[in-house]
Amino acid sequence: MRELLLIGIGTGNPEHVTLAGVRAMRTADLILIPRKGPDKADLADLRHQICASALEGAATRIVEFDLPVRDASGDYRTGVDAWHDAIAAAWGAAIEQHPEARTVALLIWGDPSLYDSSLRIAARIPELRVKVIPGITALQALTAAHAIAVNEIGAPFIVTTGRQLRGQGWPAGVDTVAVMLDGSCSFQALDPEGIDIWWGAYLGMAEEMLISGPLAERSAQILSERTEARANHGWIMDIYLLRRRR
Amino acid sequence: MRELLLIGIGTGNPEHVTLAGVRAMRTADLILIPRKGPDKADLADLRHQICASALEGAATRIVEFDLPVRDASGDYRTGVDAWHDAIAAAWGAAIEQHPEARTVALLIWGDPSLYDSSLRIAARIPELRVKVIPGITALQALTAAHAIAVNEIGAPFIVTTGRQLRGQGWPAGVDTVAVMLDGSCSFQALDPEGIDIWWGAYLGMAEEMLISGPLAERSAQILSERTEARANHGWIMDIYLLRRRR
Ligand SMILES: C[S@@+](CC[C@H](N)C(=O)[O-])C[C@H]1O[C@@H](n2cnc3c(N)ncnc32)[C@H](O)[C@@H]1O
Ligand SMILES: C[S@@+](CC[C@H](N)C(=O)[O-])C[C@H]1O[C@@H](n2cnc3c(N)ncnc32)[C@H](O)[C@@H]1O
Repeated sequence: MRELLLIGIGTGNPEHVTLAGVRAMRTADLILIPRKGPDKADLADLRHQICASALEGAATRIVEFDLPVRDASGDYRTGVDAWHDAIAAAWGAAIEQHPEARTVALLIWGDPSLYDSSLRIAARIPELRVKVIPGITALQALTAAHAIAVNEIGAPFIVTTGRQLRGQGWPAGVDTVAVMLDGSCSFQALDPEGIDIWWGAYLGMAEEMLISGPLAERSAQILSERTEARANHGWIMDIYLLRRRR
Repeated sequence: MRELLLIGIGTGNPEHVTLAGVRAMRTADLILIPRKGPDKADLADLRHQICASALEGAATRIVEFDLPVRDASGDYRTGVDAWHDAIAAAWGAAIEQHPEARTVALLIWGDPSLYDSSLRIAARIPELRVKVIPGITALQALTAAHAIAVNEIGAPFIVTTGRQLRGQGWPAGVDTVAVMLDGSCSFQALDPEGIDIWWGAYLGMAEEMLISGPLAERSAQILSERTEARANHGWIMDIYLLRRRR
């Protein structure tokens, strides 16, 4: 049976790759890399850079392939399902062109377990045995950059999306909320009183931005610096931790 | 100003160290390692093994030091505070013996941000500038071993402790709960109907154990295999993910 390695590569710092990740890349017969499109945020360059330093002297082949474009018209869930089907087909087609490759690897942004569709896409190709190599997540890059703990002593925390925060408000039963996948600074939907924020964008990259403090005092600053950075770079990825003071 | 590097080393697999972790270890003048005590779970051996392979040819010195023992009598919070004070004093004393060392490193189990006291202890030594190098957490080792995503598509999840789960029951507003720091299989406090569990112990190590399935069917098996493994090895570390079927 063919093996598919989903290798977490971290979220920007090429040195966040683990030794297990390097080993997996070197063991693979083939690494599939989505072709660099016009979108600057596809980060194909970083993947190539990681390959270049990890693969020195290894026999692994690198093959680029085209990712299908997502159809944003119509129902959200159906759209995502169809898109995942199309990606699975693209992976399958790329793999079929290399019948000699027994072990095929994909480099996954952050950790394959966290807000990533690779495991669900791989499940559509039953001929593959999937193996996951964990990687540093954006949340860990955030807490490391701010040198903070994600939890208070013995306390729970929730990880959620911008959409959920906007729709549901502050989650019940927790004083700490980590927010990912937020295109619109959804913390604006909250009463900022008594809340601290630790925000980060382009974590691990040369463009890294960090802002922290009371949400009431930092909200406007984050909004304006985020807008400016996004305009300058053409894209942005950001994440933040919110904590209610007790 | 002296620099203290808190380097996440993963939770058992020595190859979960990142390239940034290796670089930090090699850059450090001194790595402090808690002395191997009679407790098999202190895992000093793993730290030495990681050092041995990361430090080849580097000038970094390794120094062992004694960790104070926690006083379990009296109030829990006061006990923890006093213990953290004592650990800070032990770090300080070990560092003072090496005035030439400008960069001192500690190898932190998993990631320094997650249910770990190193950042709070370091905050007690204001003469140190703290830098965090993230590491693979036990939660990522769990999801990787089971090849599952931690979240459902676009959905939030909570990370909590056994004590919280026992005391509070199923957390509000989430269908996915990751449980750490659970000495007593606190999932027993839940009605198992409609819940799936992915459980793992000794993740990343030779002793690794994995059990998954409907909680109603797996609960007893986990309890008995956990008890047996713990008796055999003299210690156990386990973690699990619970998901409510919708
Ligand atoms: C589709 S999710 C993928 C997460 C990834 N699997 C991980 O483990 O972090 C993308 C989200 O992760 C966060 N993110 C990823 N990389 C980031 C970075 N370098 N800086 C800030 N946020 C980042 C953002 O919240 C972004 O919306
Ligand atoms: C004090 S916390 C430290 C967590 C660590 N900082 C991390 O990032 O995973 C210890 C808890 O982590 C989990 N854990 C750590 N290592 C583990 C392993 N190898 N296998 C299973 N669980 C582990 C257990 O739930 C344990 O009670």
